[in-house]
Amino acid sequence: MKDKKFVQEIADMEVDFPQWYTDLVLKTELVDYGPVKGTMVIRPYGYEIWENIQNYLNNKIKETGHKNAYFPMFIPESYLMKEAEHVEGFAPEVALVTHAGGAQLSERLVVRPTSETIICDMYSKWIKSYRDLPVLMNQWCNVCRWEKTTRPFLRTSEFLWQEGHTVHATQEEADIETEKMLNVYAKMGEELLAIPFFIGRKTDSEKFPGAVATYAIEAMMHDGKSLQSGTSHNLGQKFAKAFGIRFLDKNSELKYGYSTSWGVTTRLIGALIMVHGDQRGLVLPPRVAPIQVVVVPIKQDEEIVKNACAQIEDSLKKSSVRVFVDSRDNSPGWKFNEWEMKGVPIRIEIGPRDIENGQCVVFRRDDCVKDIVKLSELDEYVVKLLDEIHNNMFNKAKAYRDARVENVENIDELLSAVDGKKFARAYWCGDSACEKQIKEKTSATSRFIEKENATEGKCACCGKKSKAVVVFARAY
Amino acid sequence: MKDKKFVQEIADMEVDFPQWYTDLVLKTELVDYGPVKGTMVIRPYGYEIWENIQNYLNNKIKETGHKNAYFPMFIPESYLMKEAEHVEGFAPEVALVTHAGGAQLSERLVVRPTSETIICDMYSKWIKSYRDLPVLMNQWCNVCRWEKTTRPFLRTSEFLWQEGHTVHATQEEADIETEKMLNVYAKMGEELLAIPFFIGRKTDSEKFPGAVATYAIEAMMHDGKSLQSGTSHNLGQKFAKAFGIRFLDKNSELKYGYSTSWGVTTRLIGALIMVHGDQRGLVLPPRVAPIQVVVVPIKQDEEIVKNACAQIEDSLKKSSVRVFVDSRDNSPGWKFNEWEMKGVPIRIEIGPRDIENGQCVVFRRDDCVKDIVKLSELDEYVVKLLDEIHNNMFNKAKAYRDARVENVENIDELLSAVDGKKFARAYWCGDSACEKQIKEKTSATSRFIEKENATEGKCACCGKKSKAVVVFARAY
Repeated sequence: MKDKKFVQEIADMEVDFPQWYTDLVLKTELVDYGPVKGTMVIRPYGYEIWENIQNYLNNKIKETGHKNAYFPMFIPESYLMKEAEHVEGFAPEVALVTHAGGAQLSERLVVRPTSETIICDMYSKWIKSYRDLPVLMNQWCNVCRWEKTTRPFLRTSEFLWQEGHTVHATQEEADIETEKMLNVYAKMGEELLAIPFFIGRKTDSEKFPGAVATYAIEAMMHDGKSLQSGTSHNLGQKFAKAFGIRFLDKNSELKYGYSTSWGVTTRLIGALIMVHGDQRGLVLPPRVAPIQVVVVPIKQDEEIVKNACAQIEDSLKKSSVRVFVDSRDNSPGWKFNEWEMKGVPIRIEIGPRDIENGQCVVFRRDDCVKDIVKLSELDEYVVKLLDEIHNNMFNKAKAYRDARVENVENIDELLSAVDGKKFARAYWCGDSACEKQIKEKTSATSRFIEKENATEGKCACCGKKSKAVVVFARAY
Repeated sequence: MKDKKFVQEIADMEVDFPQWYTDLVLKTELVDYGPVKGTMVIRPYGYEIWENIQNYLNNKIKETGHKNAYFPMFIPESYLMKEAEHVEGFAPEVALVTHAGGAQLSERLVVRPTSETIICDMYSKWIKSYRDLPVLMNQWCNVCRWEKTTRPFLRTSEFLWQEGHTVHATQEEADIETEKMLNVYAKMGEELLAIPFFIGRKTDSEKFPGAVATYAIEAMMHDGKSLQSGTSHNLGQKFAKAFGIRFLDKNSELKYGYSTSWGVTTRLIGALIMVHGDQRGLVLPPRVAPIQVVVVPIKQDEEIVKNACAQIEDSLKKSSVRVFVDSRDNSPGWKFNEWEMKGVPIRIEIGPRDIENGQCVVFRRDDCVKDIVKLSELDEYVVKLLDEIHNNMFNKAKAYRDARVENVENIDELLSAVDGKKFARAYWCGDSACEKQIKEKTSATSRFIEKENATEGKCACCGKKSKAVVVFARAY
């Protein structure tokens, strides 16, 4: 009875997906609401997922030649004004410090919503010659965007992220950089998060304020909506001109640099939840799961069981598996449900009779099936199974997504696709008026350009000759 | 000539130590000034030191049972008011957000100067029973304290730190925790930073606003001044009562918890510089140095030299040494000076003649001496030497410090000690009026209590019966 209740506390994901999400993130103790509206507290079980993402991505960022640094969170308000599109995009959602140290400030300070302005200002002081280029930096930090509607991980007043900022001598180098980091993100989906990302350029109406071109990774959530999960911006010379980033080239000519920026945020945790979760709760991809294997002892007070658990723990740790023996004062059934809800990839059940038979029960969370495994072969089995679960989760997510992208020829079909919890692939004429009309009639936005220069079709909105194939979807 | 100039740009440390410090942190590209007064940009060479500190300390924090989490940076102003001493200590130096999302806020938000208030508020929601205790959390984040006089790393409007926050069922457990983390910090001095720390309790006038007792690690800088380098606070039930952290104990009685907090900051980088630096520049302890070994090729265009450098790089990397081959377009002499200024622990010089003889030159930055080493034995030599340099730096710093702590019996002697760039060890009656008088007459403050309950002496200020032995010093 107790066990049953445990599960029923989560809303039905097919009936009320948003409520399922909220129930889950709170009840699994990933996150809690902060005292200030729109803020979140990332609790240890959620933060450890972020740490695993950081570890992976930080290595990739360094392997691709970038160095970490730290720039101040307070930006003079006037800096935001220097790039016209940028201020238009961010001014409405900034938080402003007006008083500090007991006095009113002479200039208001913006709490960084993103750091292009302050970083480009510093770069303009440091960069003098082509010898100083490229500059390849990244920072891990908090940022603040005051949003009206907020949801933990997906959209909060403050969130955590990494933001890379680079300057190059040529447009070509900046192009290569933008694409390189987009691919690092996409690969992270495959290798770490078990999420298949679409990648592509954003249309002009969806691009970053101040960018020449924005590229994004987009993923389909369980409810058929899209989540923009990371972006890579080609900023051309826009910020370099606004902030005076100039260098002497090899011929002693003074030239403006070309910059890029790219980032992913704690929103990725929201993506994990909404791509992989099921009615029992979270299903965490093994490589980011804080606990990869939970051991639940049966008759845990018996010495023989305690010893067996300790042995399993020891030997899995030696195989670099994140393992936890749950010897708390609750019934095994209660623990099964809790760890299923918390999405631990593998559960090992072991009691006196199993030990007698030299075996244990292994439950995998992704498919919710059990197997009996010899204790002598357990380590090897678990290590292999973690990889298998990862691959299975990726493949399942990909199959789910690929079955839900529909080719549409007009707005009615587009509406019916997104109403049916699908993405809609459509020809588009290139006019932002058509995007606007589609949005008004279907609540779907253009997510990314799947094929550029596709002149063979007709715009799903106006019927004119197409310029591109665009994927539309409702989005978070 | 060029080489000579390079060194002369740093002020004489014996004549103008503050200017030496400023020259050094800017010229070695550890840090730069941010656009907002009092803020700093931590550049890659400085940030990598911080990353090495984080890696070490994060492991220790986890090994001692703590988990990382993340709490919002915005704290409702009313929260600060809930603990009377706390607000008195921090209110004068907070930054306030008054506007966000285009509107004035109904309550002003404090940008966290420290997070006891918001974390204790969350703890009061999460902690219900003795089963929930202890709560052992830590966060790595930025904090903001608006100070009038600022210096990079030592005192800035915004800085980076870790702050641990724990709650326990008994005072005894909180005592143990406070001491445990103080010792983790002190050990970090020995094992990582090569800095000998004094540890001890702060007098009441120097303790953290809201603490029952504050313990600190204090280090002597080259100029005989003290730098408080980390603190561990026993908060008793003060914050638990202010924020309502209560739990049902085993007898179903509702009790207040006992809390602690402890932190170290990017100030540690300042400590490194001022403890180990010399007239040539930084001297970085090997275990935090971004580059542990720099290889400077002589006649770098010759194929044989390139190959030898690549081999050395490869093989040192395999021994987990952080190595950099400097093949930039500058003379070897220029590079020698730059890397000496940047404090790289070991420099390897190698040219065609060395290669012929199967050897290279190894320069150690701590003692500034050279040795000739066989290439076949280089890896082993370097790995050993890095440890030797670490030990040598620690021992040198300890000898320097221990020779500069003077026993004093009255204010005149105390003044003469601190004028002579020393610490002064004195009996103290326990009255904060005496501390105040000492500060007025000597600019020295009580740094820590070296011996509690020391009733055998007379107060250096008032001559009354002593209660403790206290170390006084001028401080950063």
